[in-house]
Amino acid sequence: MNNKGFINDFSKQTRQEKIRLSAEYTDKPVEFERCLREHLHSDLSVQALYDEFTENAVSNFYLPYSVVPNFLINDRYYMVPMVTDESSVVAAAAKAAKFWAFHGGFRTRIIATNKTGHIHFLWKGSRERLSGFISTIKPGLFDTVLPLTGSMTGRGGGILDIRLNDLSEKMENYHQVEVIFNTVDSMGANFINSCLEMMADYFLYQAADHGLADDLEIIMSVLSNYSPGCLVECSVSCPVDELAKADDTISGHDLAGRFEIAVKMAQHDVYRAVTHNKGIYNGIDAVIVATGNDSRAVSAAGHSFAAGDGNYKGLTHATIDGNNFDYRLRLPLPLGTVGGLTRVHPMAKMSMSLLQYPDAGELMAIVAAAGMASNFSSVRALVTSGIQQGHMRLHLTNLLRQLGASDPERNSAIEFFRERTVTHAGVANFLATLRKKNH
Amino acid sequence: MNNKGFINDFSKQTRQEKIRLSAEYTDKPVEFERCLREHLHSDLSVQALYDEFTENAVSNFYLPYSVVPNFLINDRYYMVPMVTDESSVVAAAAKAAKFWAFHGGFRTRIIATNKTGHIHFLWKGSRERLSGFISTIKPGLFDTVLPLTGSMTGRGGGILDIRLNDLSEKMENYHQVEVIFNTVDSMGANFINSCLEMMADYFLYQAADHGLADDLEIIMSVLSNYSPGCLVECSVSCPVDELAKADDTISGHDLAGRFEIAVKMAQHDVYRAVTHNKGIYNGIDAVIVATGNDSRAVSAAGHSFAAGDGNYKGLTHATIDGNNFDYRLRLPLPLGTVGGLTRVHPMAKMSMSLLQYPDAGELMAIVAAAGMASNFSSVRALVTSGIQQGHMRLHLTNLLRQLGASDPERNSAIEFFRERTVTHAGVANFLATLRKKNH
Repeated sequence: MNNKGFINDFSKQTRQEKIRLSAEYTDKPVEFERCLREHLHSDLSVQALYDEFTENAVSNFYLPYSVVPNFLINDRYYMVPMVTDESSVVAAAAKAAKFWAFHGGFRTRIIATNKTGHIHFLWKGSRERLSGFISTIKPGLFDTVLPLTGSMTGRGGGILDIRLNDLSEKMENYHQVEVIFNTVDSMGANFINSCLEMMADYFLYQAADHGLADDLEIIMSVLSNYSPGCLVECSVSCPVDELAKADDTISGHDLAGRFEIAVKMAQHDVYRAVTHNKGIYNGIDAVIVATGNDSRAVSAAGHSFAAGDGNYKGLTHATIDGNNFDYRLRLPLPLGTVGGLTRVHPMAKMSMSLLQYPDAGELMAIVAAAGMASNFSSVRALVTSGIQQGHMRLHLTNLLRQLGASDPERNSAIEFFRERTVTHAGVANFLATLRKKNH
Repeated sequence: MNNKGFINDFSKQTRQEKIRLSAEYTDKPVEFERCLREHLHSDLSVQALYDEFTENAVSNFYLPYSVVPNFLINDRYYMVPMVTDESSVVAAAAKAAKFWAFHGGFRTRIIATNKTGHIHFLWKGSRERLSGFISTIKPGLFDTVLPLTGSMTGRGGGILDIRLNDLSEKMENYHQVEVIFNTVDSMGANFINSCLEMMADYFLYQAADHGLADDLEIIMSVLSNYSPGCLVECSVSCPVDELAKADDTISGHDLAGRFEIAVKMAQHDVYRAVTHNKGIYNGIDAVIVATGNDSRAVSAAGHSFAAGDGNYKGLTHATIDGNNFDYRLRLPLPLGTVGGLTRVHPMAKMSMSLLQYPDAGELMAIVAAAGMASNFSSVRALVTSGIQQGHMRLHLTNLLRQLGASDPERNSAIEFFRERTVTHAGVANFLATLRKKNH
């Protein structure tokens, strides 16, 4: 047990004081302070902006900002920004983008862009009375949020529907007012929550007015991150023969066959399915972060959607029809291109500029294509040479750096491990032998 | 459609050339180049390190690095690093940490730390023959990876078990060799994949040797991100009365009751469950990123685990027993404290130093506590004043910055919107009126 104790009013301290108090927890306070200071933006006004995004911000965490060319999506070329710390994700996406650029590119289709929120409540009265009451106040529920929905309606969105859900068979007295929103180009979390909280106030007020207050207990009003109503489909297709160009170790016919089997395995085994989808989210997440969107919301939506029918499954489907290979990805992508950090975060702003200011639908298409590219490359690698070959070079580089290898040592090691399996012990041993020899 | 076309050999270009080629896609190339340049680390050797984490890295994406004091976990105080771009996540965690520090803190228990990987294959022969063959080669499967497992076994880990799974009822001829690993303090992805690929080679070689090659087609060998065998439980408890100190708008008794109902709702409705868990992952993800771990792996594991019994559910449970309130979170956390970026990424290294170099089990405890703190604060807010109140201040700050408000305008707006709902139109309108008045 350390001897650290409770700190009062930490959030009210200056950055310098917060860093000093934190440094006391470390074994190298001087290095800690210097490292945090060196990661601040050189322009104080830009740094002030980053500091406002969250609380107790004392420095910045860097993630590499990468760009991936040659994404041909719906007949248009994109340079896609990706932010990830996982090595080979960018290279994998770039390789798939390049292959598909020569084979018609990615095609996408927005299936729906609805978002959902609920007033969750307990109701002790009869179903009939509740349903009659909701019908009565429904116009009022729409009207009460007009001050909020006005500008959203002007942009083509707003509230699409209000429904009553009876969940009392699952949990005693549990009912919901379900509200379906179109938030157009915004992710809409704040908008939806504000609408719902305002509706809940009206609901409660009307219940009291109708003498129903004793039967009603509103528990909470909040948007849902479960997003089966906000879907995009991305597809690619090419002649089976052409797949040989995606991997030089195998024929197009064999690659298509093994690819189809691999994708089918992810439909039938949860252990494979989760990893299959994780490969999709390697690409998705990188663009979501680069554009200032909410990666927790997107992955929660995606993985719960994958479990939508009761068995968690892979989100893609491969079909071979004669000489045609077709590959499809369908997933929910609740995201926005206005609001949130997208137009505030300096680098997210640059991402939007790089993508030529897509609307939400177009960004869904780009993100889905990035996910598909990432997945295509991993499955291709897995069913051919395996994924370690590609990972190993970067793994080796990291190990060498960690073990303090000099440039000549590094070059010898890269040469030595070209055809050998990279392990921490193996690399350490190699360096030790090398150093002994040179003494 | 833009007039951009295919770019050859992009990855071989210099950073400067990559930035220039990217800038051509933007509407403000000069600003784009400047912004990317200004986000580079001032120390070239540090920047070179970031550049190596991934491919085509042209700059860095900043996320605020925050620190949260007063996390009392298993009787020890921690200053927890959190990296998130979502406003109020840090404040919410800090508030919950403070409350629980005065009520015994977070208790955690590691339930298991196994990781799983598979050789996925098709087998056309009989089950009996396959099962006999696997029994025969099982010792060889262990032995063939000894060069890889040696140092892992020395650290207390290694391969725990090798099993045969028959999935042929789900998909024709589908079988797996399932391998259970203990990777001790490393996340272990590279280690597991290397072992599996080496085992697959041995498997194939032995099959040929036993005249079984025609019946066998190995599709892939890879770890699984589905991690029900790598679990931690985190719990807090306090007298019901004391909960009044967590929220000044409600009695302890009422808060406990509403809290319990809210948590139960997340057991019975997928729309609530996904959002409930997303609130957990707001905290989890922030510490996972801060420590250089893989957030895609952790969220894939978590959300698929939540769907483990066929119905996606909330990951927490609340119980009121007399005057005792008990709250528990159980979730998989595949993470590492050696290998990966944890000891290479400069800021992740500082995070590890701040946490006083936890082993993997201790880091699981810290991450779980952060997830629970984040969730506790959101549920508390949802069942009392609603979440908008807290979010709105930061939402307003972002809107004001986006609309270019001056400092006096900003102060007036904050005053004006203290009791009013914040919308983009509302704030824009307020500023316009203010500016008209001042002309």
